[in-house]
Amino acid sequence: MARGSESIDGLTAEFAKMPGIGVRTARRLAFYIQSIGMNEADKLIEAIREVKARAKRCSMCYNVAEQDPCPICSTGNRDRSTVCVVERVQDLAIIESSGSYNGLYHVLGGHIAPLDDVHPEDLSIDLLVRRVTEGGIDEVIIATNPDTEGDATANYLVERLQPLGVTLSMLARGVPAGGQIEYAARGTVAGAIAGRRPLPAKAP
Amino acid sequence: MARGSESIDGLTAEFAKMPGIGVRTARRLAFYIQSIGMNEADKLIEAIREVKARAKRCSMCYNVAEQDPCPICSTGNRDRSTVCVVERVQDLAIIESSGSYNGLYHVLGGHIAPLDDVHPEDLSIDLLVRRVTEGGIDEVIIATNPDTEGDATANYLVERLQPLGVTLSMLARGVPAGGQIEYAARGTVAGAIAGRRPLPAKAP
Repeated sequence: MARGSESIDGLTAEFAKMPGIGVRTARRLAFYIQSIGMNEADKLIEAIREVKARAKRCSMCYNVAEQDPCPICSTGNRDRSTVCVVERVQDLAIIESSGSYNGLYHVLGGHIAPLDDVHPEDLSIDLLVRRVTEGGIDEVIIATNPDTEGDATANYLVERLQPLGVTLSMLARGVPAGGQIEYAARGTVAGAIAGRRPLPAKAP
Repeated sequence: MARGSESIDGLTAEFAKMPGIGVRTARRLAFYIQSIGMNEADKLIEAIREVKARAKRCSMCYNVAEQDPCPICSTGNRDRSTVCVVERVQDLAIIESSGSYNGLYHVLGGHIAPLDDVHPEDLSIDLLVRRVTEGGIDEVIIATNPDTEGDATANYLVERLQPLGVTLSMLARGVPAGGQIEYAARGTVAGAIAGRRPLPAKAP
């Protein structure tokens, strides 16, 4: 802002560092901060401090939690022979909230993207290989995102894990439940046809 | 997150209070805060504190700035007889950056929206009426957003300002420069036709 506020410009610059937040959104958020009460701003600052002070990476699965090992790794009632590998903690949260999985996780911390200078050694892949090598894991479900970088990461994981004799699987690809084929992307439809499931020849 | 981090959940809730930030985005931002260095987090906290401590509303035009009156109201080299009325400080910033306006501003602080419980008295409309009544202003440019609430607000402003004998104008509506008619919304095209400009009958 040419003739605006230095402090608003400063906060806009900080917000614009956050992923997916452009300069216009960042400025809107900065003005929002200006408009709220001191009490509300203090709550935000305190919540940031809490995360920095308390949230840490689980040394087993790289999940983010207050304890180490995280609640998922340390609970007794989960299937410890299956590990689901995800790119980010957000993905873990979504799979958890689906209520369809009761094994353990492994959070990579991202995907392989040489153009963005993210290489295998920048992810927690060695940690995953060590977990599998140590034994007790029967199946690794690769749940990287179904995009170019996710697929490249999945391929690399297969290369590293196949020699260890563990069962490997990947998430099913297809038309999303509740979606419409008419609006599905070409790649989605191609994946759904390639992965089609046989139906019984006659009613059981 | 079912088995996640309390502090991440807390920060997610705080971020989700910000305008235009949904729960998923808020969680992504919370994980981002977890991932950055302590130094970076402190810079964000400091920038929030700076805004709360220094940025305030200009008592003349309701702009946000470190000084009161704001730099626009207090500078000598602007046309003080014209006032451009905008909904939000962000709009002021965009008009300023266009370099096409050299008058003063008046920031309403939003638009009239009875369904959201925003009424004329919640905006800085009385302050604007007082400015115009005090004299020295020849023209008021109404630059509310070209949507239902913006138009309702503009209509209300016309009602309040017309009796004061000031020249009123509003921003031109039409197809945006650089845009394509094929992709313009129906209302945009209708506005462009209604507001069409005569061209000279023959080359001058």
